[in-house]
Amino acid sequence: MEDKLMLMIPGPTPVPEQALLALAKSPIGHRSGDFSKVMADVTAKLKWIHQTENDVLILTASGTGAMEAAIVNFLSKGDRVLVGDNGKFGERWGDVCDAYGINAERVKAEWGKALDPEVFRAKLEADTNKEIKAVIITHSETSTGVMNDLETINSHVKAHGKALIIVDAVTSLGAMNVPIDALALDVVASGSQKGYMIPPGLGFVAVGPKAWEAYKTANLPRYYLDLGKARKDAAKNSTPFTTSVNMVMALQVSLGMMQKEGLESIFARHLRHRNAARAAAKALGLGLLADDASASHSITAVVPPEGLDAEKIRSVIKKNFDIVLAGGQDHLSGKIFRIGHLGFVSDRDILTAVSAIEATLQQLGYTGFTPGAGVKAAIDKLS
Amino acid sequence: MEDKLMLMIPGPTPVPEQALLALAKSPIGHRSGDFSKVMADVTAKLKWIHQTENDVLILTASGTGAMEAAIVNFLSKGDRVLVGDNGKFGERWGDVCDAYGINAERVKAEWGKALDPEVFRAKLEADTNKEIKAVIITHSETSTGVMNDLETINSHVKAHGKALIIVDAVTSLGAMNVPIDALALDVVASGSQKGYMIPPGLGFVAVGPKAWEAYKTANLPRYYLDLGKARKDAAKNSTPFTTSVNMVMALQVSLGMMQKEGLESIFARHLRHRNAARAAAKALGLGLLADDASASHSITAVVPPEGLDAEKIRSVIKKNFDIVLAGGQDHLSGKIFRIGHLGFVSDRDILTAVSAIEATLQQLGYTGFTPGAGVKAAIDKLS
Repeated sequence: MEDKLMLMIPGPTPVPEQALLALAKSPIGHRSGDFSKVMADVTAKLKWIHQTENDVLILTASGTGAMEAAIVNFLSKGDRVLVGDNGKFGERWGDVCDAYGINAERVKAEWGKALDPEVFRAKLEADTNKEIKAVIITHSETSTGVMNDLETINSHVKAHGKALIIVDAVTSLGAMNVPIDALALDVVASGSQKGYMIPPGLGFVAVGPKAWEAYKTANLPRYYLDLGKARKDAAKNSTPFTTSVNMVMALQVSLGMMQKEGLESIFARHLRHRNAARAAAKALGLGLLADDASASHSITAVVPPEGLDAEKIRSVIKKNFDIVLAGGQDHLSGKIFRIGHLGFVSDRDILTAVSAIEATLQQLGYTGFTPGAGVKAAIDKLS
Repeated sequence: MEDKLMLMIPGPTPVPEQALLALAKSPIGHRSGDFSKVMADVTAKLKWIHQTENDVLILTASGTGAMEAAIVNFLSKGDRVLVGDNGKFGERWGDVCDAYGINAERVKAEWGKALDPEVFRAKLEADTNKEIKAVIITHSETSTGVMNDLETINSHVKAHGKALIIVDAVTSLGAMNVPIDALALDVVASGSQKGYMIPPGLGFVAVGPKAWEAYKTANLPRYYLDLGKARKDAAKNSTPFTTSVNMVMALQVSLGMMQKEGLESIFARHLRHRNAARAAAKALGLGLLADDASASHSITAVVPPEGLDAEKIRSVIKKNFDIVLAGGQDHLSGKIFRIGHLGFVSDRDILTAVSAIEATLQQLGYTGFTPGAGVKAAIDKLS
């Protein structure tokens, strides 16, 4: 059967029909008055979901473009920064820094473990000359389903007083609470195909006043990703370069849906799904890569029992049920599969995925659970 | 009346219904086998329209992102380059070079005039030490409707032997003949919302072997726009960062339509529309910014008679007929309007635009033409 695909990956995430239909509208001119109105509305809605009164800028780029913009606009060559590195996207922060000649000191944790805030505290406290210009971390590490302790690490950055905090919130924004103004987060990057419920193609960067101060002296080269240009044009409800008009129109629709649902409900839904997915995995005798205390609300990385290959599970569930789960990246390939419960995902989708996982495990001859146990555990958490 | 907008601007250009419907399909995973097949097909079609056997890489970015990629991958800080500058997008090339510390020597011409190939010849011949690393030009200058003489300038670059030729073909690719391999063009940048008949959001960069040689030693910092990464993943029918899946699916449809029409027919259609638009303007007693010898096939910049403000004409035609024409940029604002006849534009659209321009001029009290003269002149050129 065709056209019955169900995405349960951490991006692209499912897109609601009304956002898809907005995508299919004929484009309007990006310099028109009509489009300025769309931009004004979308920007206001973006500020709402970012919980900020400061700037949220739209880039025609994927999340990685937004991450690069978060670096090149606020740092200079040779700057010392601390980079949290406990997964593929933490690694990527370091790679971006390396590409621009930034002195990036990695604070590492094993893939699957959370970053230790104490290491940040110690390094920041030891930095009495205030040489550390930024602390750069991934909030929800997509590759492992680990949520780093943004609030505690941020408190150490604030105690330092000088360093900026730069955050990859690609799989947390619009899914988990990221109270940008309440925490005074300086720079926060995210991407459209995640909590925003539209396809990939737009990146977002929230920028606070302390970061704009740093912008004035930051000397890394930039043009397309220059957020100063973006800010200047955003003040006129426009963009310096042609924006992805149709994607912005779809975003207006999806953000409108999110406003109707409300931030608290959205966050509660993601938390509920996280809890249901984890309870189901445990009831099925499967392992979980992240521990309970640091489990992301948007992605659950599951470790199959000895003898069952994660890629085999993924291919069978795709073949039998047209459900796409994500695999492990890099050295975790074949060792885990990841359930994305991010964005436009309902309780029904969680039950569907859990029951299909049960059926798949049974077909693969795995007998380590009581039939129905996974679904039962999920129902308990959902109700 | 709503939803009756007609875009006659040089981007975004009109999008065919079947491409819009492809945009509205639920996204599939960007790392899936199904999407790899789409990428393979799209890449083959892109090579066809670029008339090249070499690489054509897809970026999730607007045309300016593609332009920046065309610079930062192949040049180094302090490199001497010649930049053709006879309009807003020639200026932009210079600005991108400045942002990266490239020694950009502008070869200027007045806005509305073509670049003089002789100036390039003289500078390239004088460069006996072969210090000029690249000649960077805009093929069709969107801001003025001027087509620069790519073929002649390129012949001087080839006589120099060392310099790369880097071309902005944003409003020429898919509209005019840009025979990349036949001319051995090294780097050619373009954007999706132009000849490609889809909305803005993707950029393309064609890269030849000599440019890849330069890539090996080019030292400008880059990460998101790193074409070496893009090339490596393109070999696996993938992209290094999440691509704009829905836009790529729409591109597959629009390129398929273009293949059915055929390159020769597409080029002939754009030339015919250029000729019809110019003949109509002349018959209406309007001025033309570009002369006949250097008029772009995709944009016609029209100079209204003394006493008629171009912005007034634009606002009346928008109000009465829901036709969007482009205005003049920077110092040409109010002095010209631009008719985009680029992409998904038929003979019928040209007649529509010309007759609406006639009606608008009449309403504004302009009497410098015989009623019907514009449409008659256009019909003559279309038949």
